[in-house]
Amino acid sequence: MASNHKKEKTPESSVITRHPFPNSRKVYIPGKIHNITVGMREITVEDKDIPGVTVYDTSGPYTDPDINIDVHSGLQPLREPWIRGRKDVEQLLNFTSEFTRKNSESINGIKFNSQRKPLRALKNSNVSQMHYARKGIVTEEMEYIAIRENQRIDELKDHYGSMASFHKGQNFGAGMPDGAITAEFVRDEVASGRAIIPNNINHPESEPMIIGRNFLVKINANIGNSAVTSSIEEEVEKAVWSCRWGADTIMDLSTGDNIHETREWIIRNTPVPVGTVPIYQALEKADGKPEELTWEMYRDTLIEQAEQGVDYFTIHAGVLLSYIPLTANRLTGIVSRGGSIMAKWCLAHHRESFLYTNFEEICEIMKQYDIAFSLGDGLRPGSLADANDEAQFAELKTIGELTEIAWKHDVQVMIEGPGHVPMHMIKENMKKELEYCHEAPFYTLGPLTTDIAPGYDHITSAIGAAMIGWFGTAMLCYVTPKEHLGLPNREDVRQGVITYKIAAHAADLAKGHPTAQLRDNLLSKARFEFRWKDQFNLSLDPDTAKGFHDETLPAEGAKVAHFCSMCGPKFCSMKITQDIRDYARENGLENADAVQKGLEDKSREFKETGNEIYVSNDQ
Amino acid sequence: MASNHKKEKTPESSVITRHPFPNSRKVYIPGKIHNITVGMREITVEDKDIPGVTVYDTSGPYTDPDINIDVHSGLQPLREPWIRGRKDVEQLLNFTSEFTRKNSESINGIKFNSQRKPLRALKNSNVSQMHYARKGIVTEEMEYIAIRENQRIDELKDHYGSMASFHKGQNFGAGMPDGAITAEFVRDEVASGRAIIPNNINHPESEPMIIGRNFLVKINANIGNSAVTSSIEEEVEKAVWSCRWGADTIMDLSTGDNIHETREWIIRNTPVPVGTVPIYQALEKADGKPEELTWEMYRDTLIEQAEQGVDYFTIHAGVLLSYIPLTANRLTGIVSRGGSIMAKWCLAHHRESFLYTNFEEICEIMKQYDIAFSLGDGLRPGSLADANDEAQFAELKTIGELTEIAWKHDVQVMIEGPGHVPMHMIKENMKKELEYCHEAPFYTLGPLTTDIAPGYDHITSAIGAAMIGWFGTAMLCYVTPKEHLGLPNREDVRQGVITYKIAAHAADLAKGHPTAQLRDNLLSKARFEFRWKDQFNLSLDPDTAKGFHDETLPAEGAKVAHFCSMCGPKFCSMKITQDIRDYARENGLENADAVQKGLEDKSREFKETGNEIYVSNDQ
Repeated sequence: MASNHKKEKTPESSVITRHPFPNSRKVYIPGKIHNITVGMREITVEDKDIPGVTVYDTSGPYTDPDINIDVHSGLQPLREPWIRGRKDVEQLLNFTSEFTRKNSESINGIKFNSQRKPLRALKNSNVSQMHYARKGIVTEEMEYIAIRENQRIDELKDHYGSMASFHKGQNFGAGMPDGAITAEFVRDEVASGRAIIPNNINHPESEPMIIGRNFLVKINANIGNSAVTSSIEEEVEKAVWSCRWGADTIMDLSTGDNIHETREWIIRNTPVPVGTVPIYQALEKADGKPEELTWEMYRDTLIEQAEQGVDYFTIHAGVLLSYIPLTANRLTGIVSRGGSIMAKWCLAHHRESFLYTNFEEICEIMKQYDIAFSLGDGLRPGSLADANDEAQFAELKTIGELTEIAWKHDVQVMIEGPGHVPMHMIKENMKKELEYCHEAPFYTLGPLTTDIAPGYDHITSAIGAAMIGWFGTAMLCYVTPKEHLGLPNREDVRQGVITYKIAAHAADLAKGHPTAQLRDNLLSKARFEFRWKDQFNLSLDPDTAKGFHDETLPAEGAKVAHFCSMCGPKFCSMKITQDIRDYARENGLENADAVQKGLEDKSREFKETGNEIYVSNDQ
Repeated sequence: MASNHKKEKTPESSVITRHPFPNSRKVYIPGKIHNITVGMREITVEDKDIPGVTVYDTSGPYTDPDINIDVHSGLQPLREPWIRGRKDVEQLLNFTSEFTRKNSESINGIKFNSQRKPLRALKNSNVSQMHYARKGIVTEEMEYIAIRENQRIDELKDHYGSMASFHKGQNFGAGMPDGAITAEFVRDEVASGRAIIPNNINHPESEPMIIGRNFLVKINANIGNSAVTSSIEEEVEKAVWSCRWGADTIMDLSTGDNIHETREWIIRNTPVPVGTVPIYQALEKADGKPEELTWEMYRDTLIEQAEQGVDYFTIHAGVLLSYIPLTANRLTGIVSRGGSIMAKWCLAHHRESFLYTNFEEICEIMKQYDIAFSLGDGLRPGSLADANDEAQFAELKTIGELTEIAWKHDVQVMIEGPGHVPMHMIKENMKKELEYCHEAPFYTLGPLTTDIAPGYDHITSAIGAAMIGWFGTAMLCYVTPKEHLGLPNREDVRQGVITYKIAAHAADLAKGHPTAQLRDNLLSKARFEFRWKDQFNLSLDPDTAKGFHDETLPAEGAKVAHFCSMCGPKFCSMKITQDIRDYARENGLENADAVQKGLEDKSREFKETGNEIYVSNDQ
């Protein structure tokens, strides 16, 4: 491997952005079943009638100034006492993976400094949340999630008055609860396989979250370096930065050098679940030659990453040998990296994929650490032309069969989806996924709704993402403006995350998540009342909102002005509406009957006096 | 009026961006019925099997380096011979509008230098395209539009081979033609009122275009200064810039000083239809006080702008006195500037809106110049909370009644729509519009699908715009990142236009416009074949696509490389797929049967020889 391509750099704590969002503080809500507290963000607004606004917060301890964080030591292991408390794990004396043991000798200068030893389920134990759920247990993770999803709306609803009156969502048979989400509801959704809680026992730093269509739509941010770009420091900073703006999980898709150490730095410092595509690293071990991959290499990689703490694995086990010819007449062939690697392996060996033939053994590994499957769509379309074709749906059916095998082992599963799909063909993807994969959560990349806008694919795909999220997709993999063109930098990551928060939130509103509309209403009220700072602070990206406003009206006084640069003072409809309301109130014209009466009175008066209004004003 | 707020600046030709798009040239396609030529853009690609790719082009003569343009003289009056050839207009000796005559004496230094005198229909004539269409006439404009919409796909389809095989769109009873669009089809759609061709006889510089749901979805860009920002020069430059990136019409929403002269500069230099909201200027004449507005002031403003060449007027004639109390309990009241002005006038005078009571007289004016109505939704929702409420739909019903009155006069009409609407409530807007307004074209602002992302409202609204475009909306009014925060600058305008081209194109694909998918397929093929430059050049914004690519791999050699910075050379799925295809071809494995046979052969061989593949590769 070409380790001289670039100079490696490990992170300094100073590169991490940590200041809290404006007018925001961290609050910790205690559990009622378990001894837990759930960190959330509370935004204070200038309207004193409105209590602090509690919002879902993926930024972890980074936005709590009272917590000391050193990236060289990693985050505190929040979940460790819960995991150990269940008494079904053992701490190993050394790492099982051969690669991890060899690797730890050869790296100097970039090694993450940790004495951590891996945990694993006791023999014959299964530590998956699905396993607990099916036994009827409400874990700490489940209660944490219930509190987190509710954002205190149950507790504060009465204080918000008419702000808490929402449109009824349109739910596609998804069973969204009407009122508050309970820990028991979380448990039941996990037990049924409709939702997953990805949290490897070796990643106790992560805050529990749930992926399922009866919860808030989640988003994933892909980070990771390639052979030609970026350092460990940049990737760790991007991971924390993604969480700051709202990434619910991140995937480390590194394919370059020092892939193991990069991942270690990321996992130890990331407060959200981390996913990977293990075949990427396995391929590095095969020196980049797909045909030289072996099951043993792959298996060792799974264990290596399981012991590091990866929370979910993308595994392209549905790419069967017989499906490969179905891609022969495609416009863009196979665009999944994992899918194309496995297709090449299958053809080169004339054998069925080792991911498929060893699937039960993979399940055995997963349940010892509680790693979730993200069953990869190796044959997803890479262009609109290839959308919803035979290859794609053949693989999806096979993935559905694998889902049933995983569930037999109480291993959690989500299903990856496309890709590139025109709007009118999106719903079919959701429908088939629910049918073939027995309602396992769907996790899609976009889909992009047109191929003609490289440089803007965060937007082409946000359209598809919002729609498929509404239809029932549980997690949306973000797309940045750099998609198809290069690896995202820090600003691209922010653009991607915010764009996908928009898509996810639009979906939550449409499907009627019980908390979703409150923030929209509060922000709209702030806008209508010219509380500019509240408008910025309640938004997804206060820095950008304030920055845009200040480009034309930077003076502090403009933040309380009853107009803005768009219309200037005379043309502000909001101001005129306020005038209208005052006028109507003063003249008792607040309802239609009164207006009708006033109209008749005035009309009579008008006829009696002639066209005086016109005359007096005509110029 | 506070003319000392800022220093006025008139444009220099040098500020206009004129260079052609990369690898593109202007082509002119001749008509078959009339002596016309239609300007379009032809993109040349490196794949020699593919003929030049013709795309719809809104940039007008600016991207033709053979044409000399001086912004002080304006564009050539393309349509003038057609208009005069119909022998139903007269040229007036002077302007009818009192304001125009007075105004032209008082302005020095910023006056557009023109000897132009206005045209008007001869007495008892009606020069609207609807009038001609209903008489069975195919005008030059109609043939121009048919050629333009087809983008030569009928002529070149055979050359594109499998690239011209498309998904079937899902059309909501809209009657999109299966094959090429004919001039007769254009005529019939205009005659029925399902489509409009906005082109004032006093704006002969504009290239004919059509707004209707059986055609390409169009987009509008709003420009214009306010009392606190920007100059005439900036606005003219923004107008041309908008057209460059794809705006099909622009609206000049200026509310500041020198509103008449700003508009004159814009109209004379703009190759697309220009719309306005006349009440804005009327209010300036009433010194900013809605209650002092009169019908006479408004009428003179209509004529003033009609004689300048405005192609469509937004008129909020559906805001009735009795609807105003319906907004009393709204979260955000009345957010349309025109709507709030008229509401205030109605309440102040206790009278029905003068726009409503004088509607027939307005129709009489419109048909003398062929100005289209854009019936404004003065009571559109300004927040999700207010979406689809009684006030909004009451007004829409009234607008439907006004549509019938306008059609009685053969005056063209489109209908403005919201605004802020969550995804699951969008379809109802389209359905009600078609029903209440008798299928007149719908023209919506977004809608925004969430209120929590100021700074990103081009994206919150592109989601809603793409969906409503698919459902049948004919034109989408863009939203820029600055929405709610400030007036857009040049870069914001580009972001807004490209975002809306994406939404419109996604809608065209979904509804199955007969040309839409070709460009997606060609770009995807270029991507798959590593023709980087073609990928950039076929995209909506080649500058941005190339710029993003070059951030990581700027060397010229990378433009022919079979990988990019995202994955590096080893991990490129596209490259692996090419290898797979080569391998399959060499080994006769191009279809599923062959693979099955190969699998069996190899499987047998494998059993005979033992696990040698594994052994040889295991490390």
